[in-house]
Amino acid sequence: MSTNLAPWRILLSRALHLNRSQPYSRYFQLATVTSEGLPKNRTVVFRGYLNNTNQIKIVTDLRSEKVTQIEHKTWGEICWYFTKTREQFRLAGSLTLITANYPNSNLQKERFLAWQQLSDSARLQFAWPYPGKPKIEDDLVFSCLSPSPDEPLANFCLLLLDPQQVDHLELRGNPQNRCQYFLDESKTWIIQEVNP
Amino acid sequence: MSTNLAPWRILLSRALHLNRSQPYSRYFQLATVTSEGLPKNRTVVFRGYLNNTNQIKIVTDLRSEKVTQIEHKTWGEICWYFTKTREQFRLAGSLTLITANYPNSNLQKERFLAWQQLSDSARLQFAWPYPGKPKIEDDLVFSCLSPSPDEPLANFCLLLLDPQQVDHLELRGNPQNRCQYFLDESKTWIIQEVNP
Repeated sequence: MSTNLAPWRILLSRALHLNRSQPYSRYFQLATVTSEGLPKNRTVVFRGYLNNTNQIKIVTDLRSEKVTQIEHKTWGEICWYFTKTREQFRLAGSLTLITANYPNSNLQKERFLAWQQLSDSARLQFAWPYPGKPKIEDDLVFSCLSPSPDEPLANFCLLLLDPQQVDHLELRGNPQNRCQYFLDESKTWIIQEVNP
Repeated sequence: MSTNLAPWRILLSRALHLNRSQPYSRYFQLATVTSEGLPKNRTVVFRGYLNNTNQIKIVTDLRSEKVTQIEHKTWGEICWYFTKTREQFRLAGSLTLITANYPNSNLQKERFLAWQQLSDSARLQFAWPYPGKPKIEDDLVFSCLSPSPDEPLANFCLLLLDPQQVDHLELRGNPQNRCQYFLDESKTWIIQEVNP
């Protein structure tokens, strides 16, 4: 677990700030791999960093297909494109899934906190029928009461991505600017400007 | 190769139309897998469909890391989020890389056409130094003359993704609407509404 503020953090904070007028600036695409070795890709929401670390917080439903993929291969790559500033961050790293029975009490506390910080409508989705299964044609099952904001439903998971490699591309440069960051053996971030 | 207009095409066309005011609506994220079985993810540009097929056209540089990944595993998943209409398409399918020495003459013709349809600035990028290698600190190498619009540079590739599975999610529904499309053994598209 990296505990120092990584050098790419300030650039990502700047991008989030400059693109803050667009709520979708907090959405990014997370790629994982199936047990058959095929790539999968979907949009998820940035939920901030885990306290005092560079780990990126995501939330997911235990019933989601990505959970099986992550259990098989605990690695993911985020692709995060900011439309206003025209820059892309690619963040590759290990994935940790904090389920309801995850033993570490500090991370369990973080799971509770992530639940509490969701909106009512986001929490409600965890009470919906099984995602990806044939649609239940009864709107009542989707309009149930919002679950308690205090304690997460059992299928609510916190997902952490701990970046090990970051690639930052600015399309606006002339030429474009591209910079890569990676952790060496002593867990120090190495910075390398590369050709776009 | 699918030759009939797939049922998801009309929805994707509608999304492209409704989001046309934003040039970045033609950008999507393409996930591939490395030879080590790790996911990779990057933003690429939609270049239309291959004539009379449902295959999605992308262009890439032969020197790009994704080329090695695709040669290893000829499968990718596109995640395409439309910010204005708040809908996501995930398109999974086989990848075909049309390099300069690809034998099929029709597809080679398509490679030429894709080159001719690029902007001058997009073509220029294929004359830049090796992408992803340590940066050459000489701006002159990036400001060379734009290559001929008639004949593609040898490192210019056309990349085709032939969708086999499509997942369409509309966040605006109440609840959200989600629909999956997949090809059965007779190459007919099956449509299935699923829980979001």
